[in-house]
Amino acid sequence: MQQTTEVESNEICDVDSFIADMPCGALDEYRKKASFNWKLMKVALEGEAMIRFKNKVWQTLEADPLFARHVSEELSRDEYRKLSLMRLKRLMEYDFLPDDEFLENPLLLLILYTAIGQYDWSLAIKKFLAYEFFTLSLRATGSTRHMSVMDELMDFNALGCIALTEMAHGSNTKGIKTTATFDSKTNEFILNTPSLEAAKVWSGNLGQTATHAVVFAQFYAEDGKCHGLNVFLVPVRDPKTLIPYPSITVGDMGPKIGLNGLDNGFLMFHNYRIHKDYIMNRIGEIDGDGKFVNQLEDPKKRMGITMGTLSMGRVGIIGMSVSNMKKALTVAIRYSATRRQFGPQGKEELPVIEYQMQQWRLLPYLAACYLLDNFSLSFHRDFINFEISVLFGNQNLELSEQGQEIHALSSAGKAYAGWLARDAIQECREACGGHGYLKAAGLGDLRNDHDANNTYEGDNNVLQQQTSNYLMRIWQRKVEEGKPFASQLGTVDFLDQMDEHLQHSLYMESRNECQSLDFVLDSYKFLISFLMRETAIKLKSELESGKDLFTARSESQVYFARTLSMAYVEYVMIQRWSNFLRTEISDESLMTVLKRLGVLYGLWSLEKHMSLLYQSGYCRGPQPFSFIKQSILQLCRELKDDCVVLVDVIATPDFILNSALGKADGNIYANIFESIAQSQGATKRPDWWQEFAVHKPNIASLKPKL
Amino acid sequence: MQQTTEVESNEICDVDSFIADMPCGALDEYRKKASFNWKLMKVALEGEAMIRFKNKVWQTLEADPLFARHVSEELSRDEYRKLSLMRLKRLMEYDFLPDDEFLENPLLLLILYTAIGQYDWSLAIKKFLAYEFFTLSLRATGSTRHMSVMDELMDFNALGCIALTEMAHGSNTKGIKTTATFDSKTNEFILNTPSLEAAKVWSGNLGQTATHAVVFAQFYAEDGKCHGLNVFLVPVRDPKTLIPYPSITVGDMGPKIGLNGLDNGFLMFHNYRIHKDYIMNRIGEIDGDGKFVNQLEDPKKRMGITMGTLSMGRVGIIGMSVSNMKKALTVAIRYSATRRQFGPQGKEELPVIEYQMQQWRLLPYLAACYLLDNFSLSFHRDFINFEISVLFGNQNLELSEQGQEIHALSSAGKAYAGWLARDAIQECREACGGHGYLKAAGLGDLRNDHDANNTYEGDNNVLQQQTSNYLMRIWQRKVEEGKPFASQLGTVDFLDQMDEHLQHSLYMESRNECQSLDFVLDSYKFLISFLMRETAIKLKSELESGKDLFTARSESQVYFARTLSMAYVEYVMIQRWSNFLRTEISDESLMTVLKRLGVLYGLWSLEKHMSLLYQSGYCRGPQPFSFIKQSILQLCRELKDDCVVLVDVIATPDFILNSALGKADGNIYANIFESIAQSQGATKRPDWWQEFAVHKPNIASLKPKL
Repeated sequence: MQQTTEVESNEICDVDSFIADMPCGALDEYRKKASFNWKLMKVALEGEAMIRFKNKVWQTLEADPLFARHVSEELSRDEYRKLSLMRLKRLMEYDFLPDDEFLENPLLLLILYTAIGQYDWSLAIKKFLAYEFFTLSLRATGSTRHMSVMDELMDFNALGCIALTEMAHGSNTKGIKTTATFDSKTNEFILNTPSLEAAKVWSGNLGQTATHAVVFAQFYAEDGKCHGLNVFLVPVRDPKTLIPYPSITVGDMGPKIGLNGLDNGFLMFHNYRIHKDYIMNRIGEIDGDGKFVNQLEDPKKRMGITMGTLSMGRVGIIGMSVSNMKKALTVAIRYSATRRQFGPQGKEELPVIEYQMQQWRLLPYLAACYLLDNFSLSFHRDFINFEISVLFGNQNLELSEQGQEIHALSSAGKAYAGWLARDAIQECREACGGHGYLKAAGLGDLRNDHDANNTYEGDNNVLQQQTSNYLMRIWQRKVEEGKPFASQLGTVDFLDQMDEHLQHSLYMESRNECQSLDFVLDSYKFLISFLMRETAIKLKSELESGKDLFTARSESQVYFARTLSMAYVEYVMIQRWSNFLRTEISDESLMTVLKRLGVLYGLWSLEKHMSLLYQSGYCRGPQPFSFIKQSILQLCRELKDDCVVLVDVIATPDFILNSALGKADGNIYANIFESIAQSQGATKRPDWWQEFAVHKPNIASLKPKL
Repeated sequence: MQQTTEVESNEICDVDSFIADMPCGALDEYRKKASFNWKLMKVALEGEAMIRFKNKVWQTLEADPLFARHVSEELSRDEYRKLSLMRLKRLMEYDFLPDDEFLENPLLLLILYTAIGQYDWSLAIKKFLAYEFFTLSLRATGSTRHMSVMDELMDFNALGCIALTEMAHGSNTKGIKTTATFDSKTNEFILNTPSLEAAKVWSGNLGQTATHAVVFAQFYAEDGKCHGLNVFLVPVRDPKTLIPYPSITVGDMGPKIGLNGLDNGFLMFHNYRIHKDYIMNRIGEIDGDGKFVNQLEDPKKRMGITMGTLSMGRVGIIGMSVSNMKKALTVAIRYSATRRQFGPQGKEELPVIEYQMQQWRLLPYLAACYLLDNFSLSFHRDFINFEISVLFGNQNLELSEQGQEIHALSSAGKAYAGWLARDAIQECREACGGHGYLKAAGLGDLRNDHDANNTYEGDNNVLQQQTSNYLMRIWQRKVEEGKPFASQLGTVDFLDQMDEHLQHSLYMESRNECQSLDFVLDSYKFLISFLMRETAIKLKSELESGKDLFTARSESQVYFARTLSMAYVEYVMIQRWSNFLRTEISDESLMTVLKRLGVLYGLWSLEKHMSLLYQSGYCRGPQPFSFIKQSILQLCRELKDDCVVLVDVIATPDFILNSALGKADGNIYANIFESIAQSQGATKRPDWWQEFAVHKPNIASLKPKL
């Protein structure tokens, strides 16, 4: 521990008023070894307001028996669903973030959903879809005549959902087949599901509880002409009984891999009639003569802005991924610091985190978690600023370009974060060995809930292509129009010195030379420049060989555009970390460890591109790869004594973490045994004991002869 | 389809008698495009006997209502447990593999467990532990006086389990703390669990159903002297009531991530007394004077042989991993060949398998599955031959060395196979997009069941070290004693030309040059030679810096010994594939596609080591990496039209596959909808509807002030 000066001591005292001490126990040994004060680190990363807000939410939930749970709990899907609805109601009663406080600090909305999500993602998503996403859709596509539903929502007399995806069309929304045909005789739309393939599916809240759905359908005029995708507000269930209306088949998607507290649903229309006012008239409208009027003025101009706004879900998933990584790493690192296994002959067994292999498995993910967290928060701030401009500012070209950049960064960013968290959770699960297979470890449910993040809100592989398309567009603009690489968020500005970057190559005399963020950033500048050029060349050659743009892009994904998208996100994460350290961190003990995390993440990520760096000629000979590998292991070793405390900084309270292996007291075996003792029928003879003791098999009586 | 000659036509006719046609449907298009006859391929890979045997098992289960199930079924843990026990009884009645048939073809035991496991791993493992593993332990460590339990087992009056692992000691079995103290006054052992850390845990069948446990404990004589780990046969529950005996706390581990049909249990002894005859007297015995006698003659001599025998579990897990890959790939590839999404402008949407990205995500795993299957079968044969020698042959030095080689190959092999299947399942899950998240897709349960394979029977990371220790031992023997690299199974013989291999470097003029198994094998010979040398140098330098052997080995794992172990397994897989093709395949249409699979797997695996091949100087310049990547994509493209049929070859019947997305008819949307319709409460209003419709929240009534 660093010497505490008088000033620091005062700070710590303040900090103690909103950050509780960790309990004493088996982790004390590592906590005492830490090179920095974890509470000051926590404040530096999150700020007091955010920490106090999360405390409020979590302490309130923990005090409420409706939110009580146990690590070995086994709920049926139906019990889980009921609990989720009851908890949703209770969250409305708590009203953690009233409008005025939200307007003062919009970032708290993310923090709220993260805090609830770290408790239970089913509940957080159910609330988000019903309140934020549904109301956003109403505001974005409807008008005053639809706003009465808002009041109903707030009084819990309505519950909303969005029905876009169909059985046969997820990513490709242009393929939507549900139809809405206008009938001027009755002034109604007739909604129809022409085939099983056109059934609306996966809509969250639609399964059992939604009363209203925002439905996307192809609008057909009476003359049979299709006017394209339009949006309708459709009542689906009677709010007084929750019974679906006739001429609709609506129901639940059944059991899923995870998120089973959320009722995803399907919906089929059998010539179901709704009044003409239910069309969301910011997009299309029926005029007095019963004619369709397209309300979108110059839709192409608005595209960039809309793309930015639609990034909300993806920006959110980046935050979800960070939250999941934090929980997984808390479990695995605390467990690894207390679990002892093997050791040098004749000596005490070592905590498994003392092994190079265990450090190398876990600490790069810990570093990645810190950088992704910073990226997620700063990107959320960008997104909020963008949305404020959309609401209050000029909808000009800059804003449209910013929207495209946000779309690009959120697309590959979501894919990257989703995969990173997936891999981190899996590594953490395995790092906990046999005991990690207990449900009570918490890692299985975390993995199963997280899993959806990689395929919803855009399949990751499709999303990556959105990012590379953006990068290729600005490349082309540079080549054809001479427009400099410059963007609103500055994520691509470095490409303006592309030629310079491409002339660099690596020469190192010692491994120390690669242990800096600047080294990592320089390498990424080369790498991305190289991938830009290679992807552009590949794309061009595919086009020149006669392929259409769609096919040419598809054939340039693997090894080109895909890698480019990923490297771009990694670069932005490191760039923002570097900025953050420069502008926000002054304490030297914090700076030392935060830099280590940055360099460890950077080198570990760069290592994955090493063969490309050799292929491109950036690296030559044995040294570069060797130095980078040695540095990764060295940084792991240097971070090892700090890792328990680095986890304390990002950990949730035990109640939220809900893991017998990851509790803050590190008392792993007693906690595991407690989890077993509380599980259903732990020591009781099963009710079906006679199946063994009385009803004996007639051995080989049924021997099959085939 | 190839021209069918007269001879082939007869063959096909025969084959039709034990391989059923695939149903017509959406997959016809690809099935018609196939370049080979899939039934002939199936026979070439598995042989008629194996196919007929699996048919018998699967058709019997499908016809029995006790084994009926549905893809959307949701069982409570208790219901699942009860079903597992009842099904276990029924399997005894079927007696699929009587002793005489087993002796005639011991490989069928693997096939039996694989066939049951592809139906349900919980059931297969429950049966395996109760009958194979428990009886093997009795035979290996006990004597005639323990054999009466065998009869009880066969009459279902006893059910067995093995209790080795303790709460604080899994991999490091030397750390076992359970004690057995002899009391000469009563001629009894007093079993005791000195602390929570010494509780036996994870023992399969112990949770609710076992009557007898094979318990590993430290034996203490009356004078307090410890005679090391001994084995005891311990009655734990009354077979007439299933009530545990007094002075024992025994119970269930509670819910797990997967395998919840299996009752893993814990066990604590409170000075529990058993008669002295319960010691397994092949290891230790109490003589007439009440003195302990060590029965192991020259234990070191036997070590290699024992190591070989103990590989059984790991060899089995390699087979389990292949089986899981087959199921996952069947689902994902059939789905990808029928799911259409996007397409060139103005054209019909394409099946997603037409996209380069989807091919690249799935087809290398398909190739890996074929090679791993071949490796698994051939390694099982080696293992059976070894066990026969142990039982009937001389227990000589050769056998001991073979045991060590089997131990080494099964250790890294199990780790490799477990991880490969893990990654394949995950890729398949994500390749099925949103619908892959349905429980009915079958991929979530597959992942959750498979997950245990990476941490039980030895944690994968610990196991890898076993393999590298073996390789370093034979390296040292070569360097110090001049003994050639030669082994019973021939997996390391190529190392005898190590110096030659190390002089090679890569030079290619076109990508065609890398598209052969010989190219791949040569590259691996270099790679492994290089890794052997580097690991030995690293280990030496760690030792010379003053570290003990344990620490030096630990510090040589990452980037050295670990990579070596993995590359060794990959090499053996490719080597055995190459041998198999040369000796077993004559049909040219089969040969073409099987070679493609081999080269695709080889290059895809080699690609992961590319940076090392550059670092080592084996590769230089842009060509090698570029040619390898181009070849991977080319091979994916060439295999694309065959992939549906390649899956038909390895697929289980629909009943066993149990996936709405992977059925043989490819009718994905109707099948998905059927799975939804059969799920609990699909369209019915929930019983707790009043929680929404009647009991309204009092909005913001509980607003917290913190």
